[in-house]
Amino acid sequence: MEYLSEDRIAILGAAGAIGSNLAQAVLTLGLTPRVRLYDPFPQGLEGVAEELRHCAFPGARIAATTDIREALEGARIVVSSGGAPRREGMTREDLLRGNAAIAAQLGRDLRTCAPDVQLAIVVFNPADITGLTALVHAGVEPRRVATLAALDSTRLQSELARHFGVSPNRVTGCRTYGGHGESMAVFASTARVDGTPLTDLIGTEALPAAAWAALRERVAQGGKRIIELRGRSSFQSPAHQAALMCRAALGGPPYPWPVGAYVHAPDAGIERILMAVETRLGPDGVKAKLPEGTPEEMAALRASVRHLVRLRDEVIAMGVLPPLDRWTETNPHL
Amino acid sequence: MEYLSEDRIAILGAAGAIGSNLAQAVLTLGLTPRVRLYDPFPQGLEGVAEELRHCAFPGARIAATTDIREALEGARIVVSSGGAPRREGMTREDLLRGNAAIAAQLGRDLRTCAPDVQLAIVVFNPADITGLTALVHAGVEPRRVATLAALDSTRLQSELARHFGVSPNRVTGCRTYGGHGESMAVFASTARVDGTPLTDLIGTEALPAAAWAALRERVAQGGKRIIELRGRSSFQSPAHQAALMCRAALGGPPYPWPVGAYVHAPDAGIERILMAVETRLGPDGVKAKLPEGTPEEMAALRASVRHLVRLRDEVIAMGVLPPLDRWTETNPHL
Repeated sequence: MEYLSEDRIAILGAAGAIGSNLAQAVLTLGLTPRVRLYDPFPQGLEGVAEELRHCAFPGARIAATTDIREALEGARIVVSSGGAPRREGMTREDLLRGNAAIAAQLGRDLRTCAPDVQLAIVVFNPADITGLTALVHAGVEPRRVATLAALDSTRLQSELARHFGVSPNRVTGCRTYGGHGESMAVFASTARVDGTPLTDLIGTEALPAAAWAALRERVAQGGKRIIELRGRSSFQSPAHQAALMCRAALGGPPYPWPVGAYVHAPDAGIERILMAVETRLGPDGVKAKLPEGTPEEMAALRASVRHLVRLRDEVIAMGVLPPLDRWTETNPHL
Repeated sequence: MEYLSEDRIAILGAAGAIGSNLAQAVLTLGLTPRVRLYDPFPQGLEGVAEELRHCAFPGARIAATTDIREALEGARIVVSSGGAPRREGMTREDLLRGNAAIAAQLGRDLRTCAPDVQLAIVVFNPADITGLTALVHAGVEPRRVATLAALDSTRLQSELARHFGVSPNRVTGCRTYGGHGESMAVFASTARVDGTPLTDLIGTEALPAAAWAALRERVAQGGKRIIELRGRSSFQSPAHQAALMCRAALGGPPYPWPVGAYVHAPDAGIERILMAVETRLGPDGVKAKLPEGTPEEMAALRASVRHLVRLRDEVIAMGVLPPLDRWTETNPHL
């Protein structure tokens, strides 16, 4: 079996549903034979490692460790799905506080054990904030941290295909930028259905305004819907998309969806946040490109940015991120 | 994205852990864009279909149905992981009775809805018996039904690699035939560790007899160990291996592990069972080749066959399979 690379991928949170599926996807896609699995929960971790060994991927060298240093050292790519899911009785703030703290520790671990990492991909929610928090604490260049941000766009494609009764392949250019779920900014002007611009369809009989609003709402609630249907958070689609991000980072085909990347563009009124944007994702890391759209789309993006700024400032108020004017003390690249 | 085939794969039990993982693996491996998911549990089924759509496999046409006829009609390959797992308080006989009845229904459904199926792959336990039961009731040629039988062999490879401290790639020719788990027949004479025949190592300091016995026991208990570690039955390795079987059946690379296939070789003293053997698995279906080994290995195989015959005869006694002398009334190809 030919692998795209011989470099090591470290998967943190490997005992979980996303991490274990991601490890399998990385090997199934033939990205690298060298996969190191980390989780603080040794039993589940060993179970996943055993399952993957029983898959018998030719040439695979699957290691598992509960030692974060051993997990990170020498890894070219690190993917962390190691956040906590939201549990019964937790407020949104509890979740934010808990996962931001986990992300801060991830950042410190990267700083200590993998300062030369080519790309760290953060998958746990709220990813725009956890990715940003990891970046600040890691002290690495912004191009070294990306977050999974594709699912709103893939859900938009899927919902449009369903509405118009066409194969998803016929729905192109689906893009949401900024935040995730309810705070996403949908950029309809880039999308086409069977070649027709989506903006020519919105408000017509083919897609009345109310149906379009309902469709966007289904996209925003796509993750919640999976929980209702399966009784658990989505894990197959995040894992698959994270594996495709790894593939692009290792020099494989371009990654076709938006990626969460650091944006600091004071001229555009966007400062020091991480959000879903168009990017170039490859062996040089991730490079953000600011979205361009209609006035309405840019207004939606600004609203999304304001939401992300509020979340970021909450994390600063919690003391998990330093005040903005002291970020460069922690990370001189920002 | 290029797919190996445009023909449809039907996955039964798609809401379950194996079925949902298998659907993802089939698409990740690029076997076919046409995947039809079936499960009697509509919520979980729709959740899996949604997750797979959110993966955005280019060109994929993912359909989900709770109608078995719709699921099977026009499918070139059918994979069923739709058995029940063993639950608290169930005896082994309860499990056998329940899953044999499910397999009999699978066979009748194949007969009615997919008589021209190229290959039906049965993944649920005890697979040697459920596969045989499905074959008898389906009325198709024996080459049209295969079962997953790789995991004892891949576990043997994994355990030998661990024992000798080498990469699994350096352990070749691992083969178990006959039944699964405790009733498997290990064929050590085909295996090599770093080029050295395993039989030259057994009983030496490198692998004392007691260590070899303990190793075989770990292989036999490999599935149970996953349950202990993960709190659930193994699903990643069966799904991955079943996907590789589909790949070979669609004309892809040869399948490298033993497969469960129908064997009726009175000269060899093996009559009308289905068991793990060497096979040729491809677009013509599955063709069994009787194992050859040392006298000890052949004795172990005969013991394994006796075990499978007892299980088969239990299912006949339950009335789920007809008496042997009436099989051809149900399936003239046997």
